[in-house]
Parts: sequence; C-alpha cells; structure tokens
Amino acid sequence: MSELTLYLAPGTCAMAVRIALVEAGAPHRVKRLDLAAGEQRTPEYLAINPKGRVPALVTEQGVLTETPALLLYVAQRFPEAKLAPLEDPFLLARMQEVHSFLASTVHVAHAHGRRGSRWADEAQAIAAMLAKMPQNMREGFDQIERHYLTGPWVLGERFSLADIYLFVVASWLESDGVAIDEFPGVADHYRRMQARPAVQEALAV
Amino acid sequence: MSELTLYLAPGTCAMAVRIALVEAGAPHRVKRLDLAAGEQRTPEYLAINPKGRVPALVTEQGVLTETPALLLYVAQRFPEAKLAPLEDPFLLARMQEVHSFLASTVHVAHAHGRRGSRWADEAQAIAAMLAKMPQNMREGFDQIERHYLTGPWVLGERFSLADIYLFVVASWLESDGVAIDEFPGVADHYRRMQARPAVQEALAV
Repeated sequence: MSELTLYLAPGTCAMAVRIALVEAGAPHRVKRLDLAAGEQRTPEYLAINPKGRVPALVTEQGVLTETPALLLYVAQRFPEAKLAPLEDPFLLARMQEVHSFLASTVHVAHAHGRRGSRWADEAQAIAAMLAKMPQNMREGFDQIERHYLTGPWVLGERFSLADIYLFVVASWLESDGVAIDEFPGVADHYRRMQARPAVQEALAV
Repeated sequence: MSELTLYLAPGTCAMAVRIALVEAGAPHRVKRLDLAAGEQRTPEYLAINPKGRVPALVTEQGVLTETPALLLYVAQRFPEAKLAPLEDPFLLARMQEVHSFLASTVHVAHAHGRRGSRWADEAQAIAAMLAKMPQNMREGFDQIERHYLTGPWVLGERFSLADIYLFVVASWLESDGVAIDEFPGVADHYRRMQARPAVQEALAV
C-alpha cells in the first residue's frame, strides 16, 4: 500500500484528519502549509486542491478534500480501528449529523471571526461579524452540550470520529472569546481527548 | 417497517432528502413546515429538532438531521436503490466531499443572501453580505463545473445522491441573481435532473 499524504496546518480542522490517521495507525506523511505565508494559494498547491484550503489527502486514486469526507474515508479504509459505526446506519448517520453540524454551522460561525472577508468586503461589516461570532459559537456548543454529547463520548459509550472532530473545534473556543468551562460536558470531554496518546502524537507535527 | 417522516419546506435543502426517498422507493410521510410563519420555531417542532431547521427525519430509532447525514442514511437503509457507492471507499468519500462542499460552502454562501442576520446584527453588514453573495455562488459553481461534475453525473457515469443535492442547490441560482447558463455543464445536468420522474414526483409536495 502506498502512503497517504495529508496537507494540513496547525490549528485548523485538518488536525482532525491527522488525529484520525494516528488513532487508526494508518501509515501516512504530513505536509504542513504556512497559511499566513499564503502557501495554500501557490500554483503547486492549487493543483492539488483548487479550493486553496486544508485539509487535502492524496491517495493512490486521487486527492480528497473536506474534513467530514476524509474522516469517513479513514474509517472505511482502516475498519479494524473501529473509528465509525459502519455497520449501523442510524448511528453512522448520527455521527455524520454531528460532523455536518460542526462543519456547516460551528466551523462557519468560527470563520466569521477571522475570515469575514469571505462574505463581505466592507470593514464595518467584517467587524460586525467578528462581534457576533462568540454568540454563535456559544449557541453551537449549547446544542452540542445539551443534545449531541450523550455519554462519555458523542455516540454514548462508543468512541468515534465525532469525538476527534469535536475536540478540534472545541480547541478554538478560547481564542474565540468563549470559556470552554461554560460547557462542563464539553470541557470534560476535551480534557479526556487531550490525554489520549494518539492525540498528543498527532498534535506534535 | 414503520414509516419514516420527513419534515421539509419547499425550496430548502430538505428537498434533496425528499427526492432521495422517492428515488429509493422508500415508504415515507412528508410534513411541510411554513418557515415564513415560523413553524420551525414552535415548541412542538423544537422538541423534534432543537436547531429549528429543516430537514428532520423521524425514524424508529430517533430523529436525524443535517442533509448530508440524511442522504447517507437513505442510501444505507435502501441499498438496493444504489444511490451511493457504499462498497467503494474512495468514491463514497468523493460523494461525501461534494456533499460537504455544497453544505458548508455553497449553501452557506446562499444563506448570506437571505439570512445574514445569523452572522451580524447591523443592517449595513447584512446588506454587505447580500451584495457579495452572487460572487460567492459563482465561485462555488465554478468549482463544481470545473472539478466536480466529471461526467454526465457528479461521479462520472454513475448516478448518485450528489446529483440530487447538486440539483437542489442549483435551483437557488436564479433567485440568487446568477444565470445557471454561466455554467453549461451544471445547466445541462439540471435539465436532465428535472426530467426524472422521481424528481417531478418529489417536488409536487
């Protein structure tokens, strides 16, 4: 089997894919992009991912992008790691539901604090988005705390990719001006994730 | 098997789940919410989906939400309809990649034209988001036209859920001020989707 290559940047959602690969014991290489230096916009990288974002995963069959897709790919390709309930349509859909909420609602809320220029050009509008961002992060984590974190892990007793993705998104709260301890279940989950050897190994890129 | 119940509103991404259910020949009931009248915010509906959005799918095991999750659930639960390449990790990840791009980038771009108040309170900021929205829709569909629509269908020769989801998101272009014919491949795909009997049946809710 030839190696997988993951393009990532520290602090981004691409770290969820990195943690998933380490948890799965998957042979892979990591290429780190310096987003502040614009390395995601070079012709070389745009040939890999024309969207100019991380993550991108180079496989023998081609390049895949988008965090929820890469997480499911890791689970399907390394099924012995049991990172997703592949055999249970309802539970798998619940995991995908959490991934989709994290990607389309919570990550999007977060992005309005740093990358408001994606959605408006005026400085005033960008400042207004930044001002509202903590409120939207709180609303997202309130949903997670009350409805999605149903046991020690997101899927109850069963550890899954949703725990990895939640951990990475929760790591953004502090810089977004939201204290993680406002959400005691999320805070406890975060500390248990931080203690996992695979997480520590994965973050040390 | 007890019936599935889909909560939807015409014109929303929930219609993709409705089309998928009809394409799969899945027994289901439809409950239509009047979003303009605020029916997604009643205590009764918030007990079903605390996020106050559509779609929501009531199953025997519980309620599922988020369009990409519901699409995969339909494919897994009705595998004989062959709406997803469940047996091929790479192709399934590609389908999920397209779903994730539609949900987290293109749908989010579209929402800035109608629901900018999610991300800022000031009228000026909301107007600035509306002004930039068509440019972001164009950029999203440019990616789809050049990189994702690789054959007659999104996955090449093989029809899948990604075609259904793309069709629904493309139906928003006209009201977003973007002519679908700017993207000839998308426009051709849209017309072929419109001609499918299941699509016509599904849209007649």
